[in-house]
Amino acid sequence: MTAESMNLIEFKKMFPGEDTAEKMYKLIERLYPICRSITGNGLRETLSEIQKHIPISVKEIPTGTKVFDWTVPKEWNINDAYIKNSKGERVIDFKASNLHVLSYSIPIQKKLSLNELKDHIYTLPDHPDWIPYRTSYYDEKWGFCMSQNQFSTLKEDDYEVCIDSRLEEGHLTYGEYVVQGRTRDEILISCHICHPSLCNDNLSGISLATFFAKYISRISNEHTYRFLFIPGTIGSITWLSLNEPDVSKIKHGLVIAGVGDSGKFHYKSSRRGDAEIDQASRNVLKHSGHEHEIVDFFPYGYDERQYCSPGFNLPVGCFGRTPHGQYPEYHTSADNLEFIRPVYLYESLLVCTAIAHAIDNNRYYMNQNPKCEPLLGKRGLYDKIGGGNEGQEKQLAMLWVLNFSDGNHSLLDISDRSGLDFELIKGVADLLVEYQLLNRKSERIPRGLPRG
Amino acid sequence: MTAESMNLIEFKKMFPGEDTAEKMYKLIERLYPICRSITGNGLRETLSEIQKHIPISVKEIPTGTKVFDWTVPKEWNINDAYIKNSKGERVIDFKASNLHVLSYSIPIQKKLSLNELKDHIYTLPDHPDWIPYRTSYYDEKWGFCMSQNQFSTLKEDDYEVCIDSRLEEGHLTYGEYVVQGRTRDEILISCHICHPSLCNDNLSGISLATFFAKYISRISNEHTYRFLFIPGTIGSITWLSLNEPDVSKIKHGLVIAGVGDSGKFHYKSSRRGDAEIDQASRNVLKHSGHEHEIVDFFPYGYDERQYCSPGFNLPVGCFGRTPHGQYPEYHTSADNLEFIRPVYLYESLLVCTAIAHAIDNNRYYMNQNPKCEPLLGKRGLYDKIGGGNEGQEKQLAMLWVLNFSDGNHSLLDISDRSGLDFELIKGVADLLVEYQLLNRKSERIPRGLPRG
Amino acid sequence: MTAESMNLIEFKKMFPGEDTAEKMYKLIERLYPICRSITGNGLRETLSEIQKHIPISVKEIPTGTKVFDWTVPKEWNINDAYIKNSKGERVIDFKASNLHVLSYSIPIQKKLSLNELKDHIYTLPDHPDWIPYRTSYYDEKWGFCMSQNQFSTLKEDDYEVCIDSRLEEGHLTYGEYVVQGRTRDEILISCHICHPSLCNDNLSGISLATFFAKYISRISNEHTYRFLFIPGTIGSITWLSLNEPDVSKIKHGLVIAGVGDSGKFHYKSSRRGDAEIDQASRNVLKHSGHEHEIVDFFPYGYDERQYCSPGFNLPVGCFGRTPHGQYPEYHTSADNLEFIRPVYLYESLLVCTAIAHAIDNNRYYMNQNPKCEPLLGKRGLYDKIGGGNEGQEKQLAMLWVLNFSDGNHSLLDISDRSGLDFELIKGVADLLVEYQLLNRKSERIPRGLPRG
Repeated sequence: MTAESMNLIEFKKMFPGEDTAEKMYKLIERLYPICRSITGNGLRETLSEIQKHIPISVKEIPTGTKVFDWTVPKEWNINDAYIKNSKGERVIDFKASNLHVLSYSIPIQKKLSLNELKDHIYTLPDHPDWIPYRTSYYDEKWGFCMSQNQFSTLKEDDYEVCIDSRLEEGHLTYGEYVVQGRTRDEILISCHICHPSLCNDNLSGISLATFFAKYISRISNEHTYRFLFIPGTIGSITWLSLNEPDVSKIKHGLVIAGVGDSGKFHYKSSRRGDAEIDQASRNVLKHSGHEHEIVDFFPYGYDERQYCSPGFNLPVGCFGRTPHGQYPEYHTSADNLEFIRPVYLYESLLVCTAIAHAIDNNRYYMNQNPKCEPLLGKRGLYDKIGGGNEGQEKQLAMLWVLNFSDGNHSLLDISDRSGLDFELIKGVADLLVEYQLLNRKSERIPRGLPRG
Repeated sequence: MTAESMNLIEFKKMFPGEDTAEKMYKLIERLYPICRSITGNGLRETLSEIQKHIPISVKEIPTGTKVFDWTVPKEWNINDAYIKNSKGERVIDFKASNLHVLSYSIPIQKKLSLNELKDHIYTLPDHPDWIPYRTSYYDEKWGFCMSQNQFSTLKEDDYEVCIDSRLEEGHLTYGEYVVQGRTRDEILISCHICHPSLCNDNLSGISLATFFAKYISRISNEHTYRFLFIPGTIGSITWLSLNEPDVSKIKHGLVIAGVGDSGKFHYKSSRRGDAEIDQASRNVLKHSGHEHEIVDFFPYGYDERQYCSPGFNLPVGCFGRTPHGQYPEYHTSADNLEFIRPVYLYESLLVCTAIAHAIDNNRYYMNQNPKCEPLLGKRGLYDKIGGGNEGQEKQLAMLWVLNFSDGNHSLLDISDRSGLDFELIKGVADLLVEYQLLNRKSERIPRGLPRG
Repeated sequence: MTAESMNLIEFKKMFPGEDTAEKMYKLIERLYPICRSITGNGLRETLSEIQKHIPISVKEIPTGTKVFDWTVPKEWNINDAYIKNSKGERVIDFKASNLHVLSYSIPIQKKLSLNELKDHIYTLPDHPDWIPYRTSYYDEKWGFCMSQNQFSTLKEDDYEVCIDSRLEEGHLTYGEYVVQGRTRDEILISCHICHPSLCNDNLSGISLATFFAKYISRISNEHTYRFLFIPGTIGSITWLSLNEPDVSKIKHGLVIAGVGDSGKFHYKSSRRGDAEIDQASRNVLKHSGHEHEIVDFFPYGYDERQYCSPGFNLPVGCFGRTPHGQYPEYHTSADNLEFIRPVYLYESLLVCTAIAHAIDNNRYYMNQNPKCEPLLGKRGLYDKIGGGNEGQEKQLAMLWVLNFSDGNHSLLDISDRSGLDFELIKGVADLLVEYQLLNRKSERIPRGLPRG
């Protein structure tokens, strides 16, 4: 970001660095112990924590609701779970880590030999200290996850396994928060909230979305922002199914996940690849000074796979740091409170804010003086002693904006073409409007419409 | 090729490696001694050998037939030729190598001094052991080709030259073999058969086309295949001229030449550059594991220069190993039975088969469940324990095919975009059709039509 | 350039190298002492020197004329200027260098202390020997420029400053020279003439344009050439304003500046980026054998910023060697007669000539024999002994021209696609027209029209 970045200066006034970074991290600390899954009370507790920051609505969708090819599943809740040895010692205790239980495990209480038990145990031989995270949402099973080291200490014995869970008619719970803008065009911000004690994936995304929403709710926006806090996959499918008539309002969107680790930024493009959100994300990351990578869309990952399914093909990208599956701690107990850092959370929030600002402020203007340059000097907009090297960034920015404000180039296009920071381009455009050298184009080029 | 490559597995069952490689080579051994030119009995003998493998029709086009700007030339046949020294010894003998005579030499019987003789002798000073291959089809001349070393031994003497040839009204002979497919859309496979004892150029192409045709004739195909065994240039011009009304049936085509040497593969794109045959060839070569190079069209080379002349602009590329003129043995006696190897012939046949399969199986499908992903798990199409790394190629392939089967992406497009092997994509598409998640698009995107 | 480059051979006959190089340099020597600005007698003297070479018309536009957002300024003339110390010695004397006076300085005669004087002095601390070039056209000021070294010797004293200038109603003067071609489509050649004793910027451009015009006036051209010798910025704005109805005749254009230094060539593309002038310049520079760089359009620099303002968007690029601001001598007294060399001026003239030739000779042709190749041999256009390596550039060029003369590819397109020199392609096309194998396409693809 350059010094000209007025929006980010404003942002930093409202959300100063260290303080905000700590608050983002603290929210994660509070959410960390909760046992979340794709349904159940863990989600309700999580949303209730978020409500202490932003006034999200909590939605409850009954088990059995048809959502496209899927059905809202039974609600899963768990009270306790353990494996006891013949001495009655808990060798595995759900209370020590909610990762110990295969998510969506059916209730069980039974004695088994070590051999019988083995079929229900998941470990990570390559990382013998870590507990894996495993789920079985759509196949009724039970199981335990533990470290390979702990598993190796288990001796031949009679074990008592107990999973005190309930899998029954209930609801799928998600949170939604809409901040009205000047137009009904929407920017969607979506994060998944279904993982238990895993920090980067995706308590980091939840925290970023929460603080981002808090900021958006305090400023004036062109776009309406819709924040979704949903269980992965089934949550986005459910939302899309129940809100199908309104889906076309979504003109831009980001799925937020994995934003607290130290890795470089990644932006995964929307399926379209040339959507405005793709352009804005590329542009902002390029000027961010942070290491980053832009990757093409691929049809697996987070909820962008649903938003970008061919029947919707929404302009939704995915924003994060190290991508899922590309760090060994992913989906293990090592994705813990030490794995993420406040400073990275805040950096991610800043970049995300800059992307949203770029989208929200991207406009087409018409040069009111398109034949030859206007005389900037007489308006006090230009250096008065000529002959020296033209080098002042702001003056160059003015020339770029004037020359390319022909109705075919948006401010982002001009930033891309000139290589100058979007905020500088935007600031100069505002100045030129003030001096009546530029007018906003009456009709916007409809880039946000669905394409083939 | 990956293990999933069912078509190639089937192919290899019908045409097992070592056995087929030997047979391909043996056909070349039989054809090698025949003295071929652009007309004459050598062509008839050659086609008659090929008929032992596939039932080609032999066509005879009379001398004088107008074919566009050209005229079918007189038929050339040769019985014997030699240069005798004053002792009556044959210092050059056509029977030792049919390369010794300038192809299309007019009959001559004459005594000459060494000096007079020189004007009619062709050698290769840079490769003093090799005999060059030279022709004079359209200018009535006579001449001899010999090694530079042999030429250097010729002393001042009275030489008797004799070329016992006939250049007279007759026919241009070519072979054609059509294998009907389910549609009238054609894939053209063309090779030139006019070179005398030269192995890579183009007995290798003749052998590949023969065995490829044999395979195609035994399987069921979407496309109709047309195999042409023609003299170079005049043959393709003649065929195009006599079959002009049917030319538009050709939707894809390959000229096959130089496929028996050890060099890396080359695919020369059609003039269009973006034809389906270009896409398929690039795709298959990329996944073949073989070193290869894709080159742009240029208007010289083999018969693609006629197929791709601007009045036809057919989607015909050229497939081979080391391109013509890029190996020193090209058009010399060193392009002999040692220069080519059975294993390279078979490798070339495999790649060629894979390209044809890709074309023949390239389809557009419609995802029957385009809004969000279908639930693959309930259909047994997906791993049931989630949370682990998604890494299974086949499952990813399913997601790619589902997401991009929107009527705008063919299977080749999806293979290109995903980086996954075409045969894997194709196999998965078949599976999804079986599970009613995919339907073939009723109308095909008309990519095969002529373009500007 | 290849030996086939007939046009350049002709050019070199008329304008032989050493001789022309010297003449170009001599013109600069004569123009060097004149004190030019954006108006005034210096311009008249300059144009009068140029008139000794080519019959340009001199235009006089009155002060106060409205030209778009600008107004033709008062005319500035200067007789003398100096700074005298208390001993009456001229420590700065305009007669020693016309760079000593801030261009457009208002008249002044006054005594000042060193401290008061300082505010009116411009130096270059980084290059203490050089005098900077500074202007104040649109803000009424006075000032002196001097070397930092000289400035450092000035002691506390009472100084008498005198600028004997007049800034009053008068005219803006420019030169125009039109060479009629066979069509009314125009090629614009524009150079600025407003700088005082600065050689590369832009006496070099003036000299090149003069000799280029002299050549153009002696040959027959398809296009009408318009040469403008104008003061920078206000000159092009004035011309565009007064000639607005005729601007659309300009189909191609070059701004010429900085063509006498030893640096590599630079071509700055037009705002469109894909105009024919862009293609021709890229093509010619690629084949020129000279180091060069193609840069995208940016909206500052020379008069192309006016020609390429969005209301005109003319296909005008900028041709030169080292770009403005990228050499330390730029806009200083070091841009003198030693900084430029005759040989570089002539090289630049040659490249510029080749670009103009490419534009003037770029055509679309129709192959009269588009189905298969024509038989070149029977027309004596092809080597008669086949079988050897096809390697003759001219024969390949014939095949390229024939294959791509389908009405969609211009000769420049064919040169680009084949990688063969434009002059070779053009020569071969002429030959094929002569042999009735090619006809000029009746209608030209209208590439020169304004685009969005």
